[in-house]
Amino acid sequence: MNAELISVGTELLLGQIVNTNAAWLAERLASFGVNVYRQITVGDNLNRLAATVSDSLKRADILILTGGLGPTEDDLTREGVAQATERPLEMDEEQKARLLARYQSRFGNMPENNLKQATKPRGSIILPNPNGTACGYAVEKDGSWIFMLPGPPWEMEYMFEHEVVPLLNKFFDLSEHLFHRNLRFFGIGESALEMEILDLVKNQTDPTIAIYAALGEMQMRLTTRAKTKEEADRKLDGLHEKIKAIVGQFIYGTDEDTLFSVVAKQMQAKNLTLSLAESCTGGLLASSFTDLAGSSKFFKQGWVTYSNQSKIEQLGVKAETLEEHGAVSQQTAIEMALGARARSQSDYALAVTGIAGPDGGTVEKPVGLVWLGLAGPEGVISKELNLRGRRDQIKLRSVKNAAYLLFDHLKEKI
Amino acid sequence: MNAELISVGTELLLGQIVNTNAAWLAERLASFGVNVYRQITVGDNLNRLAATVSDSLKRADILILTGGLGPTEDDLTREGVAQATERPLEMDEEQKARLLARYQSRFGNMPENNLKQATKPRGSIILPNPNGTACGYAVEKDGSWIFMLPGPPWEMEYMFEHEVVPLLNKFFDLSEHLFHRNLRFFGIGESALEMEILDLVKNQTDPTIAIYAALGEMQMRLTTRAKTKEEADRKLDGLHEKIKAIVGQFIYGTDEDTLFSVVAKQMQAKNLTLSLAESCTGGLLASSFTDLAGSSKFFKQGWVTYSNQSKIEQLGVKAETLEEHGAVSQQTAIEMALGARARSQSDYALAVTGIAGPDGGTVEKPVGLVWLGLAGPEGVISKELNLRGRRDQIKLRSVKNAAYLLFDHLKEKI
Repeated sequence: MNAELISVGTELLLGQIVNTNAAWLAERLASFGVNVYRQITVGDNLNRLAATVSDSLKRADILILTGGLGPTEDDLTREGVAQATERPLEMDEEQKARLLARYQSRFGNMPENNLKQATKPRGSIILPNPNGTACGYAVEKDGSWIFMLPGPPWEMEYMFEHEVVPLLNKFFDLSEHLFHRNLRFFGIGESALEMEILDLVKNQTDPTIAIYAALGEMQMRLTTRAKTKEEADRKLDGLHEKIKAIVGQFIYGTDEDTLFSVVAKQMQAKNLTLSLAESCTGGLLASSFTDLAGSSKFFKQGWVTYSNQSKIEQLGVKAETLEEHGAVSQQTAIEMALGARARSQSDYALAVTGIAGPDGGTVEKPVGLVWLGLAGPEGVISKELNLRGRRDQIKLRSVKNAAYLLFDHLKEKI
Repeated sequence: MNAELISVGTELLLGQIVNTNAAWLAERLASFGVNVYRQITVGDNLNRLAATVSDSLKRADILILTGGLGPTEDDLTREGVAQATERPLEMDEEQKARLLARYQSRFGNMPENNLKQATKPRGSIILPNPNGTACGYAVEKDGSWIFMLPGPPWEMEYMFEHEVVPLLNKFFDLSEHLFHRNLRFFGIGESALEMEILDLVKNQTDPTIAIYAALGEMQMRLTTRAKTKEEADRKLDGLHEKIKAIVGQFIYGTDEDTLFSVVAKQMQAKNLTLSLAESCTGGLLASSFTDLAGSSKFFKQGWVTYSNQSKIEQLGVKAETLEEHGAVSQQTAIEMALGARARSQSDYALAVTGIAGPDGGTVEKPVGLVWLGLAGPEGVISKELNLRGRRDQIKLRSVKNAAYLLFDHLKEKI
């Protein structure tokens, strides 16, 4: 089985929005063992859209279009597919009734042009959309199936899972699936990681290994094709062990783990509590932990002490410390961590102070200098970071390093 | 001038990473008046890559490939373009020297296979990459120009600005540029906004209007083609005024403005200071403000009071208030705001408390119920929100609403 994805919308071509639908669909299709060989983005232009659909039909068993199903004259996906499949557009009375009812209940009388949302290429299956006005469509052409879904991700994703997946299983044999395991690394760079496992990769064909870099992190994607999860796991476990033997000390998690979720697991495993004292990360560290559902189980509170005054008043950092060593210093990071731990009565407190830039750097303390402090029942430790990048990147690298400092510290204990 | 973008990488096809390069390049090209008619993503497969390049060459004056320039066997962009342009790959001695020197200084002796990063399709111009090992290439084919850039955004973006733009201006006439103005709306939905300006849009051809929805926000993109910024501004100002007259009360900014940057402007214009008290947003509000360079000028401090205990101890919320009304209530939001303002001695304090979900909701207080509190010299106000979406969406909608509450409140005063 192979598929092509066509994203429709001039806003994509102009770069006004990033195409996240393609990545989401590609990942879901890959999990069914459907190979996506091409992703194409075209604008709201009937002829180019129809030509693109025709091209893709020559190559692909499955064609998924997203976007261009709205009520405006710019929404041409229905028309484009109708042209490419040589199926005239016709009104779907059921969809028309649904559309009118939905519109009526919200905005009153529906403008005439909205009725195009009730048309479909002759013979199409209508895919209902509970989250929006634009329905989707499934239509066949010479054995290939074309699926049309609306552009908004929350509408598209729901319809893919509830409408497209059942049809794919009905029309195609998806018995052999692609299985992935994602190994997540921190504290090792791309070149270093590649060199460590060079020999392993050379002779490795199944599962395959792909390495890629996220900001400050590395991921290693192990991929294999199998009929069952058990069969896949046997293969993935074997390779996983080999990799562990070489660079295991840098692996912090797998698959959906994040630096924050693995710390959360450590905390909850031992009923530990955490508090945070942030300066340069400005709340991003707290926000990263509280993105996790149930984080209230271990996260007690955080301080964003941006001003020196607040570091003194809220965390009890000594004025002399700030005068002598400055707000960005090992001593301040340590006092922030100790103060946060004492005042929150948490088991652990993590502190970050640094210079996120673009301004505020000096020769002795350049942009990217960050000090971490970690206070716990065993005492307090600190770490100096020298980070590169834009302000937002320095913030993100700082919170990842802070989480990793805690993870690495707790690893021995748990 | 028209361009096509080819993103190379199986990790893109598998949806392991989102393609932000295409959006970034499309936007930059659009600003030069270069039409991008197609964006294509292909995997690390030589024949499909070469075929895609050949197809695009039939249609496009400018072809920009990103990715596939690394040292591994999967990196096939050089080979694919060489095949499509019928130019053999040859070693570039200067690049080889640079490569060896850079590698030596970092990791010692360079593996043989890295030498492919010093090869180029015969006659290519080498585009230096100060931020990485992979250089870029520019090569001509029947009057079209192909540019190859590395995949990492921070490398690609720098090389586009410093290497590709000058060559584009040399090879093509980019005298007429596309100009945009982005009007940013909050507090009005897509359907409502579209209906308000329906008549205006009908007869509007230049500048064009495109509406799109960001989470909880709306944007209206005005686009026109002109030789000079002055000429463009005349056209954009005219339409801007017309739109203001209809839905001006919902416009909070233009272009790169965000809800946080416009509040920052208000604050700095009057030398006001801000503090934050967050529960359900867990630091995201503070992080959003501190993403702004120079935010320390107005942002004093923030509290992430996740636990009831911390609301009492850190902000002085009354225990009775939490017992009687609960942590997610108008009264708690108000006391959080008043407490934060008093303890930080800030001019304004913004508080957020709510249920971000997925758990913790009840019949009376469902997931998505959020209370905002705003304390200032004029006293304190509060606002109830009933938000939909996932945990991260509820957090994001909450902080946007909080920022807008402050923006809207200060609008009259400033």
